[in-house]
Amino acid sequence: MARRRRIYEGKAKVLYEGPEPGTLIQYFKDDTTAFNNEKRAVLDGKGVLNNRISEYIMTRLNELGVPTHFIRRLNMREQLVHEVEIIPIEVVVRNVAAGSLSKRLGLEEGSSLPRSIVEFYYKNDALGDPMVSEEHITAFGWASTQDLDDMIALALRVNDFLSGLFLGIGIRLVDFKLEFGRLYENDMMRIVLADEISPDSCRLWDIETGEKLDKDRFRRDLGGVTEAYQEVARRLGLMPGEGQSASAT
Amino acid sequence: MARRRRIYEGKAKVLYEGPEPGTLIQYFKDDTTAFNNEKRAVLDGKGVLNNRISEYIMTRLNELGVPTHFIRRLNMREQLVHEVEIIPIEVVVRNVAAGSLSKRLGLEEGSSLPRSIVEFYYKNDALGDPMVSEEHITAFGWASTQDLDDMIALALRVNDFLSGLFLGIGIRLVDFKLEFGRLYENDMMRIVLADEISPDSCRLWDIETGEKLDKDRFRRDLGGVTEAYQEVARRLGLMPGEGQSASAT
Repeated sequence: MARRRRIYEGKAKVLYEGPEPGTLIQYFKDDTTAFNNEKRAVLDGKGVLNNRISEYIMTRLNELGVPTHFIRRLNMREQLVHEVEIIPIEVVVRNVAAGSLSKRLGLEEGSSLPRSIVEFYYKNDALGDPMVSEEHITAFGWASTQDLDDMIALALRVNDFLSGLFLGIGIRLVDFKLEFGRLYENDMMRIVLADEISPDSCRLWDIETGEKLDKDRFRRDLGGVTEAYQEVARRLGLMPGEGQSASAT
Repeated sequence: MARRRRIYEGKAKVLYEGPEPGTLIQYFKDDTTAFNNEKRAVLDGKGVLNNRISEYIMTRLNELGVPTHFIRRLNMREQLVHEVEIIPIEVVVRNVAAGSLSKRLGLEEGSSLPRSIVEFYYKNDALGDPMVSEEHITAFGWASTQDLDDMIALALRVNDFLSGLFLGIGIRLVDFKLEFGRLYENDMMRIVLADEISPDSCRLWDIETGEKLDKDRFRRDLGGVTEAYQEVARRLGLMPGEGQSASAT
C-alpha cells in the first residue's frame, strides 16, 4: 500500500486521502471512548464489526435514496467515502428515553416518548458537545435553515428505516446519532449522511430480554461489548457462515 | 385587609386570590435566590423596586399592543394581574453573550452575538431548569407549536421595545427572561406575557462603564444590589422627586 496522507484522526476512525480527488478512505479503529474521552479502551475487532455494519446500513440507505458519503467497503477496516464538508452538529433521534435525555428531563430510562424527538449537539470536545437548538445553529452559521431542514428530513427517514430494520431482527432502536456533510459535485451542493451508523452510534436493546447491544455496555462497564456488536452483525446476516437471523418479533 | 387565599408562593413573589374571578394579586418579596435556590438573601426594598419597574414596563407593553397579565399596581408591593395558566417554559432572549450561553458555547462575556438568540428552559427546580428545544416542548405538550410561535413573536417584540427603552437611558440590554401564560376570556385563549420584567430577570449593563445593574451583582457577590436596581428605577424616572434622566448615549 502506498504512503497515504492522513487528513483527520478522530476517536474511533481515521480519514486518509482517497485514490481519486473528492474521495477519502475511512479507517475504523478498535479504540473506543466515552464521556468526552475520559474513559478509553481498545476493543479487539470492534472496528472490523462497525465497518461491516455501517457498510450494510449505508448501502441500504443509498438504495432507498437517502444520500450518504459511503461509496464501498475496501477491506476489513476501511471504506471509500466521498469527501464532504462536515457540519459540526450531531443530530440525535430518540424514540425511547435514555442517556442524557433521561437525566435532563428526569425521565425513567426505557419510558416511551410521546413521539420521536430530534436533538442537536455542537461537536466540540472542549465544551463537551453541548446541546444546542436551531437558534444557536443558524445564528452562529454552523448550518443554514435549509441545511437543517434537509438534515431533519433525512434523520427522520433514517429513523423510519432503522426502526424497521432492527425491529425485524428483534432489536428496539432506542436512539442514534448522525453526522451530516456538504457534498459538492458538479457545482451543486447537497447534504448527505456521513460518519458511520453502528452500535457505537445507536442504542439498541434486545426486544425480548432488554439486553443492551451497543456502546452503553462499555460506558456502563457491563462487559461483553464486542460480543454484543457481533450479535448485531450476526442478526443482520453479516457474520461469515451464518444466514440472516429470523428472530423477528 | 381581608384574609386572602394564597394560590402560589415562588422564590421572589407570592400570588393571592384576587378581588374578582379571573384576577390574582402578585406580591413582590424582598427575597432573592440564585443558582437554583442554593444562594439566598433578603434585599431590603428589592420587591418595591421590582413592582414599580415591572409596572412601568408592562404598562408600556400593554399600550404597544403586547398583551400582558398586568392590570394595575395596587400598592408598594402588590399588583393586580389576570389569572393565567402559566406555560412551564422560560423564554430567554439574548443580544450579547453572557451567563450560561457564554459557558455552554465558550464565548467571552460581552462578545456580541451574530443576531438575537431565543432560548427555552423548562421550569423545573428539581432538574435545575434545563435548556430544552422546541422539539422537547412540543413533544411533551408543554406548549403547542402555535403557542411557541406566539411566544417567540412576543419575545422579539419585547426585545425591540426594551432594547430601545434601555438604550435611551444609557443601559445595554444584554439578555432577559420572560414567562408566558394562557389567558382565557370570552371562550377565547390567547398567550400573554406574565411574571415580571425587572433587574431580577434582565442583564443590564451601563453602556459607559460596563457596570452591572442587575441580579448578577447578587449572583457574583458584587455588592450594591439594591442600589443598582434603584439606579435603573431612577433612570426610568420612577424614583419620587426625580424627573426622567436624559443620559441617552
